[in-house]
Amino acid sequence: MKRIDIIGMGPGRESMMTGDAIKALDEADIIVGYKVYLDQLGERYSNKEMYDTPMRKERERCLYCFEKAKENRQVALICSGDAGVYGMASLMYEIGESYKDIELNVIPGITAALSGAAILGAPVNHDFCLISLSDVLTPWEKIEKRLKAAVEGDFVIVIYNPQSRSRKGYIGRAADIITQYGGGARVCGYVRNIGRDGMLSRICKISDLENEDIDMFTTVFIGNSDTKIVNGKMVTPRIVHER
Amino acid sequence: MKRIDIIGMGPGRESMMTGDAIKALDEADIIVGYKVYLDQLGERYSNKEMYDTPMRKERERCLYCFEKAKENRQVALICSGDAGVYGMASLMYEIGESYKDIELNVIPGITAALSGAAILGAPVNHDFCLISLSDVLTPWEKIEKRLKAAVEGDFVIVIYNPQSRSRKGYIGRAADIITQYGGGARVCGYVRNIGRDGMLSRICKISDLENEDIDMFTTVFIGNSDTKIVNGKMVTPRIVHER
Repeated sequence: MKRIDIIGMGPGRESMMTGDAIKALDEADIIVGYKVYLDQLGERYSNKEMYDTPMRKERERCLYCFEKAKENRQVALICSGDAGVYGMASLMYEIGESYKDIELNVIPGITAALSGAAILGAPVNHDFCLISLSDVLTPWEKIEKRLKAAVEGDFVIVIYNPQSRSRKGYIGRAADIITQYGGGARVCGYVRNIGRDGMLSRICKISDLENEDIDMFTTVFIGNSDTKIVNGKMVTPRIVHER
Repeated sequence: MKRIDIIGMGPGRESMMTGDAIKALDEADIIVGYKVYLDQLGERYSNKEMYDTPMRKERERCLYCFEKAKENRQVALICSGDAGVYGMASLMYEIGESYKDIELNVIPGITAALSGAAILGAPVNHDFCLISLSDVLTPWEKIEKRLKAAVEGDFVIVIYNPQSRSRKGYIGRAADIITQYGGGARVCGYVRNIGRDGMLSRICKISDLENEDIDMFTTVFIGNSDTKIVNGKMVTPRIVHER
């Protein structure tokens, strides 16, 4: 049966990819992805055929994969982090309904909640949630509702896509919502360009977030009510005490 | 500076480990962990010194790492999945306050939320949360509060440690809470022994969960209100429509 590999490449550095991901890339005839991530693959794949589409052209990118697989080319679709976390896996399954003779093989990767956490210390060492602040595909009301629920449930919160040039001020809006529902005193931190050149990490306060240099390559971590700073690291204990 | 590597080994199969994790294991003089996971490391590390402590002796396990590092032995502490997700990273930082000349290096791994999702399809392709049902270190009231918040926020929910021989019936209790707060119609699924011999996965209904064969090596996925079954896979769309 024909097969497309949908690969989570982790933060970008080859040593943070799994063996399964590297094997699938080695076997591919064509590697498809968003250009920023294709460019990170490096020398090892420089002789491979590559294909990219810009952001918001994800459907075209996925369709290209299926059309090439139909021609018996071995296709690897890469996503940054994990392929199934805000990645292309679900769209591939949806489009795949029209290509039932092509098998989809998702190869997981290290998502930013894990790679960023390892830099900051151990911020996600108890129950946590991931929330994307991008309102391109999600109504803002839904994002706000999830931030509220996450604070009320005392989850550690990992924020993806905090803001960008076209979505300025979003992390400040999120910080305001978290504060409004009682999370204003939580320890937080962020990591930019995880595992790549120019990596930067910082531990800070909720009220600092709006003025920090946070862009679309930054992941933000908001602790739960137990999260503390230990020896300069952000640490969420495994043990929750009765209060 | 002396260094301890705290390694997420993923589900257990070497091809699902990162290059950084394998390098750290290769460099180690002693590999420390829970015996079940040490046994999964396989032939490649059969000549290494190993040390294990049973469950609930995690503090002793961590202390052993620091004591051996003080003796200039290179120590690798392994955790299943990711070292910072219900793993040893936070406890190591807490104990590390008494060993300030030893650096801790967390190497992320593929946690079950990602590896299990890749088997089921794309269930965590939008905002999601992780909740452990173990009330050994967390009061049950807190777990219940988080389940309630997760349903109210319409998160996809990934359940770790769903039940065990000493915690029978817990997944049924969680299913009841999810139903009580309006999530009874959600698509769900589970994966047992992810990436290992005897792997089993199934997509089912919330009301089925209490009667399924779910143990401590099983990860359970509860969809959000948009999650659907596509060609036999559990898929949470990237796009959230206004309702």
